Amino acid sequence: MNAYEIIVRKREGKELTVEELEYMVLGFVDGRVEDYQMSAFLMATFFAGATDAETEALTRIMLDSGEVLDMSGVEGPKVDKHSTGGVGDKLSLIVAPVASAVGVRVPMLSGRGLGHTGGTLDKLESIPGMRTDFEPARFAELVADVGMAIVGQSPQLAPADRKMYALRDVTATIECVPLIVGSILSKKLAAGLDALVLDVKVGRGAFMGDIEQARRLASALVRTAGRLGLPAVALMTDMASPLGRMVGNALEVRESIEVLKGDGPFDVRETSLALAGRMILMAGLASGAEEAGTLATGALDDGRALEVFSRFISAQGGDTGVIDDPGALPRAAAVAEVTASGEGYVTGVDALTVGLAATGLGAGRRTVDETVDPAVGVEIVAPIGTAVGRGDVVALVHAREKDEAEGALTRVRAAFDYGPDEPRVGSRLLSILE
Amino acid sequence: MNAYEIIVRKREGKELTVEELEYMVLGFVDGRVEDYQMSAFLMATFFAGATDAETEALTRIMLDSGEVLDMSGVEGPKVDKHSTGGVGDKLSLIVAPVASAVGVRVPMLSGRGLGHTGGTLDKLESIPGMRTDFEPARFAELVADVGMAIVGQSPQLAPADRKMYALRDVTATIECVPLIVGSILSKKLAAGLDALVLDVKVGRGAFMGDIEQARRLASALVRTAGRLGLPAVALMTDMASPLGRMVGNALEVRESIEVLKGDGPFDVRETSLALAGRMILMAGLASGAEEAGTLATGALDDGRALEVFSRFISAQGGDTGVIDDPGALPRAAAVAEVTASGEGYVTGVDALTVGLAATGLGAGRRTVDETVDPAVGVEIVAPIGTAVGRGDVVALVHAREKDEAEGALTRVRAAFDYGPDEPRVGSRLLSILE
Repeated sequence: MNAYEIIVRKREGKELTVEELEYMVLGFVDGRVEDYQMSAFLMATFFAGATDAETEALTRIMLDSGEVLDMSGVEGPKVDKHSTGGVGDKLSLIVAPVASAVGVRVPMLSGRGLGHTGGTLDKLESIPGMRTDFEPARFAELVADVGMAIVGQSPQLAPADRKMYALRDVTATIECVPLIVGSILSKKLAAGLDALVLDVKVGRGAFMGDIEQARRLASALVRTAGRLGLPAVALMTDMASPLGRMVGNALEVRESIEVLKGDGPFDVRETSLALAGRMILMAGLASGAEEAGTLATGALDDGRALEVFSRFISAQGGDTGVIDDPGALPRAAAVAEVTASGEGYVTGVDALTVGLAATGLGAGRRTVDETVDPAVGVEIVAPIGTAVGRGDVVALVHAREKDEAEGALTRVRAAFDYGPDEPRVGSRLLSILE
Repeated sequence: MNAYEIIVRKREGKELTVEELEYMVLGFVDGRVEDYQMSAFLMATFFAGATDAETEALTRIMLDSGEVLDMSGVEGPKVDKHSTGGVGDKLSLIVAPVASAVGVRVPMLSGRGLGHTGGTLDKLESIPGMRTDFEPARFAELVADVGMAIVGQSPQLAPADRKMYALRDVTATIECVPLIVGSILSKKLAAGLDALVLDVKVGRGAFMGDIEQARRLASALVRTAGRLGLPAVALMTDMASPLGRMVGNALEVRESIEVLKGDGPFDVRETSLALAGRMILMAGLASGAEEAGTLATGALDDGRALEVFSRFISAQGGDTGVIDDPGALPRAAAVAEVTASGEGYVTGVDALTVGLAATGLGAGRRTVDETVDPAVGVEIVAPIGTAVGRGDVVALVHAREKDEAEGALTRVRAAFDYGPDEPRVGSRLLSILE
């Protein structure tokens, strides 16, 4: 067996054996397989695809390349939520406390932002003192004590994914369903979960531009998780426009706190409750979707979710003062107003454009080595459906300095579409795949 | 512009601009583009293909990555022949002297054997004293003085191809028409030719297994050469069974000398004359294919081609004594007989199997670092159409030692097919593409 022959077989569309996939993945990790051979293999996989059996084997091999967290000390059903990434996607900060308040244990391994989508760890770290770099044993303790924890992926978990992802990121082989499935599920399986709820984003601000692509990914995720013994469900949600009104780390924490207090944008609240409801249902804490939804809504509305959030911030070293006084969160030095270039109703706000503008301001990373600025971002003042006149303020740009703010104005202005008729604002929930 | 975005565009089937192709190829040569990015690009090209304009641009960029030979001192029409490689393919050793004897100037840049196919340089170097490592200026002098020369590709010519080929060789991206076209034509254009005759081999012992693949390659070669101002014609020739009876370096030189003396196997003579005839025609030395064929046959039959061959060997330092006494060529220490495993007529001799057996004996290289043994190889005693009884000798294995010879016997025996009916032995010339 050698890498060359395995690449040829994949290139020719043959189904690879477990041994061949092991040779490539583990060989790449230990250096027997060169990175240029791995990248040819990844591109061949992009074109030739992979069968369910191959995807399952790939995921298991990536999982077995590292440790699996010991969650035996955590009582109760352990369920996590994973999003494929969007613009303004702060849902983890709401979903985890809501589900936890109802009795779900949420051991959440999160990532950092890359490209135009944000990362939960970056958002959390905008809270003064907040830490996300806990060792596996402490992570399990936090989940047991608080009911939830959100930490970064430790290098011991699925190291093959870490190395493969870094290569995919520079060889244009990210957008490949079996590779995405292996990457997501190997890490989730390493966290010792009982079940998983997936939020597969669809639209301009998402990884998957159209519903068919998203459905293929969602379906492969659910099928592969099932083959590996992890019950999973996928919600497909709309990411054509930014979720909520805030895009940027501290801005999104502020909005999450608003929602946890019973306020905030409807779409953020609705999508969070849908995801939390599914986690409650998968955890076996409700007899049906309706009951699960009622439990989630109750925990949000009576303040229990906010209490869990407060304990969670405190347990991970964060300053809970930001809950009562969001002004304690980092604030940008320069705020500039984006005015409407049209009139009538706002009919669209392009998520990708806003996401790229926020990244350009420093809210996200263009390369893994960049650091983010917690304070900067974009605030949507006139979301879809708002009636505006030409020159009205439709968004605010939060920037480090005036020049940077003005540089982003044109970009954000171009994200808005206007029309004469009031648009119908639909639900972000597109469909559910079980 | 960056490598990532160019890979994405190629992956999505977009037509790349000249600037984008330059960025990838020259960036790879000077290190701005990483090898793992180039290999992803090459694999994306394998799947997405390339347009004629892209193939032309790629070839020109590879050509311009190095020097072009100055052949202005060589009077007369300069025409080369290039084969895509086969088993027992010693045609260059006959074609070049025949064409040269008629007045064509043949500046032939050749390669070494890799995998199951042989290389002309390896064959020539089995002649004691023979050199193929001449500087460009001396190469031109040899062509002017002798009428032909066969030398190795200097590192100054198309260095991009050299580096890309080495990467393709380990990433399973050799079998890709636009990349093959770029590789072949960039080197041929660097030799300052007036015209080119291509021998595109088809069948089990060739690069291209079936006629449709071969036709696509031949057509892309002729079209791209034309776009680049180099008139070219492609002959598609059958490589299902080894060409002639000898496979191995010194063995093939011996067979070439036999053909130059008017003897030798019919298929080698016929194919050589067809290729030489086309070179004569492209050189403008004949008014039609028939006249060109007559001129070629005349030069072979009256001994002028053998005289050119002798001058060529002498000019490149070789011992011309081997022409009168082929016994002066290296001889293998151990010769073992392969006996027929069936009876009736030999209906097939699998070129790939014989090629791999010869390589295994040391006649070829499995990796570029290996050295070849000039003496070893396989000699077909009973070519297709021979009537044999079970146990008759059908081939001889020439090996370094008895054990190695016996190791190859089973392999060579399996290359032969037998049947009750006398097979029709067709011409190796399948079609011509102009």
